[in-house]
Amino acid sequence: MKEIQNVYDQKEFFDAYKEMRDLKINANELIEIPTIKKMLPDLKDKKILDLGCGDGCMSRYFVEQGAKSVVGIDVSTNMINEAKKHNCQNIKYFVMPMEDISSLKGKFDIVYSSLAFHYIEDFSKLIYDISNKLKKNGYLVFSQEHPIATCIKMPKDGTKHIDIDGKRYYLVSDYNSDGERKVDWNIDGVIKYHRSISTLFNTIIQNNFIVEEVQEAKPSKEAIKLVPKYQYQNDRPYFIFIRAKKS
Amino acid sequence: MKEIQNVYDQKEFFDAYKEMRDLKINANELIEIPTIKKMLPDLKDKKILDLGCGDGCMSRYFVEQGAKSVVGIDVSTNMINEAKKHNCQNIKYFVMPMEDISSLKGKFDIVYSSLAFHYIEDFSKLIYDISNKLKKNGYLVFSQEHPIATCIKMPKDGTKHIDIDGKRYYLVSDYNSDGERKVDWNIDGVIKYHRSISTLFNTIIQNNFIVEEVQEAKPSKEAIKLVPKYQYQNDRPYFIFIRAKKS
Repeated sequence: MKEIQNVYDQKEFFDAYKEMRDLKINANELIEIPTIKKMLPDLKDKKILDLGCGDGCMSRYFVEQGAKSVVGIDVSTNMINEAKKHNCQNIKYFVMPMEDISSLKGKFDIVYSSLAFHYIEDFSKLIYDISNKLKKNGYLVFSQEHPIATCIKMPKDGTKHIDIDGKRYYLVSDYNSDGERKVDWNIDGVIKYHRSISTLFNTIIQNNFIVEEVQEAKPSKEAIKLVPKYQYQNDRPYFIFIRAKKS
Repeated sequence: MKEIQNVYDQKEFFDAYKEMRDLKINANELIEIPTIKKMLPDLKDKKILDLGCGDGCMSRYFVEQGAKSVVGIDVSTNMINEAKKHNCQNIKYFVMPMEDISSLKGKFDIVYSSLAFHYIEDFSKLIYDISNKLKKNGYLVFSQEHPIATCIKMPKDGTKHIDIDGKRYYLVSDYNSDGERKVDWNIDGVIKYHRSISTLFNTIIQNNFIVEEVQEAKPSKEAIKLVPKYQYQNDRPYFIFIRAKKS
């Protein structure tokens, strides 16, 4: 088996990532979190598993909203160390790749994941494992990079968009080719996995989930005012969000 | 209310369309029909409503496969006249826009539609009406143009794709702006409606459907051999297919 990628434990990546997140002016804070928060089911007294929990900002939010307990896992020791700096009752953090969740004890009411599934090579196994870790009528709520954005195999000159008469057009290619895409983000050659809309939905459906809601990144007017380039997310949304219920 | 578009009753459009379909070498025959046929539920003894039935090729297929009865409707008199040329027991054809299906009597086991929903302005009302026309546990199976293809508001020079180093990249823009798109297809200025993935799914889900399967246009090797440009559907699929069950 291929070694699991862990760019968040590479100093150069982690420093750049942390600086971006600490600024609080980024697509996570301004677009992703506001959208996914609205999609969450009732959190009161729920047992929640947070996959790719990072610095634990959402794990803490779940407890603040009345969750009974949260398990936050992340493949990065750096990120889990950040998370542990904020003491919080009822949260347990583990350094663990989400490929290994079948080793966790017990079942959960909600499995949550924010912008991490596009790092996972075997989506079928991931969703199968999540389904097994959920109680009946439990929820999977996740965001990931949008297939319309992940699909492209980059042209040689590195262009992801072209501007014509002051308007931005994004390029897409290789949409039907699920698999690895190497992108430069904080450092060169970060590996992400493209999966089509049909792969995402059929995998979820085939693992005993009912899809309840789908959203795509829509920047608010306030977000565009703070970061004008976010207007282009209306031309090609960067994130997709799905809430599904285990039947 | 805006007048319903009926390009299939404009001679120039109809002649060009009929010539394309008669050739049997087109994306309908080579990509769309083979995909959607595999997504159909059991047809035996079923009452089926075929929305935008065109020349009735699928209506006849349903009866051949054992359907009890089929109602085929189309807004175009030209197309219904074509359909009626093939006598077939157990099929009734009506010239009727699918905006008016609530006036049909009775309920159906399956509502089917092939590449027509992107002509409909009010998708919410359409899905609401379809849900009302379906029996409990009935199926909606449809194809339409893919949001990744319908989204673009064309650049001034009319380019939908650019080629870099012999590889094709398609342009996308305005993905989050659901609504009218004017395109030149057989004649100038055909009106189609773009709707995002989230609009499609949430509308279906909110009208008491469970999404069971999603497919996207994938040309077979044989199709690409016959029409080499179909390879580009792997870069940006032109159709999306959904099967949903009324709960």
